Amino acid sequence: MAVYTEIGDEELDRLMAEYDIGPAESCKGIAEGVENSNYLLQAGGRSYILTLYEKRVRARDLPFFLGLMEHLAARGFPCPTPIAGRDGRALRQAMGRPAAIISFLPGRWPKRPGPDHCAQVGEAMARLHLAAADFDLNRANALSISGWRPLYEACADRADEVAPGLGHDLAMELEAVEKSWPDALPTGVIHADLFPDNVFFLDQRLSGIIDFYFACDDFLIYDLAVCLNAWCFETDGAFNITKARRMIQAYRSVRGLEPEELAALPVLARGAALRFLLTRLYDWLNQVDGALVKPKDPLEYHAKLKFHRQVRSARAYGLDV
Amino acid sequence: MAVYTEIGDEELDRLMAEYDIGPAESCKGIAEGVENSNYLLQAGGRSYILTLYEKRVRARDLPFFLGLMEHLAARGFPCPTPIAGRDGRALRQAMGRPAAIISFLPGRWPKRPGPDHCAQVGEAMARLHLAAADFDLNRANALSISGWRPLYEACADRADEVAPGLGHDLAMELEAVEKSWPDALPTGVIHADLFPDNVFFLDQRLSGIIDFYFACDDFLIYDLAVCLNAWCFETDGAFNITKARRMIQAYRSVRGLEPEELAALPVLARGAALRFLLTRLYDWLNQVDGALVKPKDPLEYHAKLKFHRQVRSARAYGLDV
Repeated sequence: MAVYTEIGDEELDRLMAEYDIGPAESCKGIAEGVENSNYLLQAGGRSYILTLYEKRVRARDLPFFLGLMEHLAARGFPCPTPIAGRDGRALRQAMGRPAAIISFLPGRWPKRPGPDHCAQVGEAMARLHLAAADFDLNRANALSISGWRPLYEACADRADEVAPGLGHDLAMELEAVEKSWPDALPTGVIHADLFPDNVFFLDQRLSGIIDFYFACDDFLIYDLAVCLNAWCFETDGAFNITKARRMIQAYRSVRGLEPEELAALPVLARGAALRFLLTRLYDWLNQVDGALVKPKDPLEYHAKLKFHRQVRSARAYGLDV
Repeated sequence: MAVYTEIGDEELDRLMAEYDIGPAESCKGIAEGVENSNYLLQAGGRSYILTLYEKRVRARDLPFFLGLMEHLAARGFPCPTPIAGRDGRALRQAMGRPAAIISFLPGRWPKRPGPDHCAQVGEAMARLHLAAADFDLNRANALSISGWRPLYEACADRADEVAPGLGHDLAMELEAVEKSWPDALPTGVIHADLFPDNVFFLDQRLSGIIDFYFACDDFLIYDLAVCLNAWCFETDGAFNITKARRMIQAYRSVRGLEPEELAALPVLARGAALRFLLTRLYDWLNQVDGALVKPKDPLEYHAKLKFHRQVRSARAYGLDV
C-alpha cells in the first residue's frame, strides 16, 4: 500500500500541460505497490498510471526501466508504454521527484494463482526474455548474489529477533549459495520481480505484466527461479510441483533451456528465496514508524529456502531432465 | 488512506455477475477515504467505485445513504448514483460485508481551496438541501450535540495527553455549547462531512460531491457551520473571512437564510468544531496498532474552536446581518 507523495493541484496541472493527453479529469492514489507513489489518472477519457518515483528507486536507473517498457511494448509485449511529453521525453519531474505517466493496462492480478496462471506466466516470461534480447541499455542486478552479503551483514545481529537461529542459518546458507553459484549461464534482461501482483489476467488470459522497476541483466533462468518461489508454493507452505512443471514447460515451449540452466535451477531457486528472505528481513528490522506499508513476513521465504535446500535436481520441479 | 478488505477474485466475479455491467476488467484499491474499502472498478469500458462497508458504517443506515444518492442524482444533483443489480437492488454483499457499486464521478478535490471553490460549495450545498427536501427516509445525526458528551466522556481522562488543559477546556466548551444550542431551526437532510476531499472540481467548476456516509437529518445551517470550519481556515490557522462570505452568500443565493439561522451560526460553528475535535481526539487516543489510516490532528480543530468562541455574531463570518 503506497502513495507517499501527494501531488498538488497546480503541480498536476503543470505536469499535464507538458503532455498532449489533455487535463487531468481525475487522479486517485492507488493502494498497491510498495516502492513508489502511484495514481490512477484519467485524461481525455483514457486511463493512465502516474508514478512519482520515491527514494528506493535510483533516478539513474529510470531511463533503463522506461526504455525497457517502451522497447517491449513496441514489440507487442503486453506491458505499459511510457507516454512521451510534447518534447518527446517520458521521464519528467513532479513534486521534486522523477515522474512518468504510463499507459493503463486492464486486467486483475490473481489472488490465488492456479496451474494455468503459472503456465501463462512461464510463457510470457520467455517472450519477455526474447523481446528484450536486442534492448541496448544495461543494468546490473544490485540484488543478485553480490548484493546479498552486505544485506546479510546489515541484518545479522538482529536476525534472531525474528526467529531463533535465523542469523546462523542465513550465514550457512549464504556461504553455500556463494560456493555453488554458477558463473556462466545465458544472460539477458529479466523482470526479477514477477510476483502475482505484477501479472494481470482478463477472462483467464494473461493481459499484461507491470512493474519493471527491478528489471536488470542477469541469468535468464534466475527469473524462473524467482517465479518458482513466488507462484508455486501454496499458502500452507507446500510446494506445488504441478504449477512448477506447467510454468517451466510453458517457458521452454517459447525459449529452450540449456542443460546447464536446468542443472543450476535448484541453487538459483535457493538463491532467489534467500534474496527475498534478506530484503524482507531488512525491511522487517528497519520498519519506519508511521510507514504506510506493512512489511511482508520474511519467514515465508525461510520456509521456501528450506524446501530448495533439500532439492537435488530440477526433477523436484517437475522436469524429466 | 483505506482499503481494509481485499476482495478475492472469485468473490469479485460472483459480485459482478449480479449486475448487468460486464465483468471486472480492473479493480484497484484507492488510497483515499478513511471509513470504507474503496476500489476503482472498470467494467464494460466504464469506471465505477466499488465500496465494501467496514464496521464504522452501520448496515442499517445504508439504505438511507444509497437512497439519498439515488434521490439526488435523479434530480440532477452531481453525486454518484448507486448501480442496481439485476434484481433492482443496489445494496449487496461481498467478503461478508455490505457492498455497493456506484457510478464514478470525474473531477479532483482541491488541495488548496480558494474563495471561488468556497462559493461553489456554498451554492451546491444549498442545492443539495433543496433537492433532498422530498427524500422520504430519515436518519438522526448520531454525531450532533447529543452524541458529543458520550464522546467527551470516552476521551476526558486522557485528553491532556494530547495537550495540557485540553480535558478541562473540552468540559467547559461542551457545557457552553449545550447551553446555547438552538432547538428550532429549519431542518432537513445535510451532508454533514462536506470537506474539500469530498468535493470534486473539473476545470475550476464543481463537478460532483461524494461520500454521503455521514448524511443525516439536522439543522440545515449546521452543514454550513461544518464547511466554515473545513474550508475557510488557512493552513496557518487564520480564518479567511472572504472565503466565508463567498460561501454564505452563494448559499443564500439558492436558499434564503432565516434571521434565527444566521443568529445561531456562531454557536453552530463552535459546535461543529467541537464535533470534529472530539472525533479526532477519540481516534487519536484509540489508534489501532498497524492501522493503515493515520489519525488526523485533533488540535487543528481546537484552534478553530477557539476562533468561534470569541465570535459574537455572524458578522465575523463576513455577513452584514
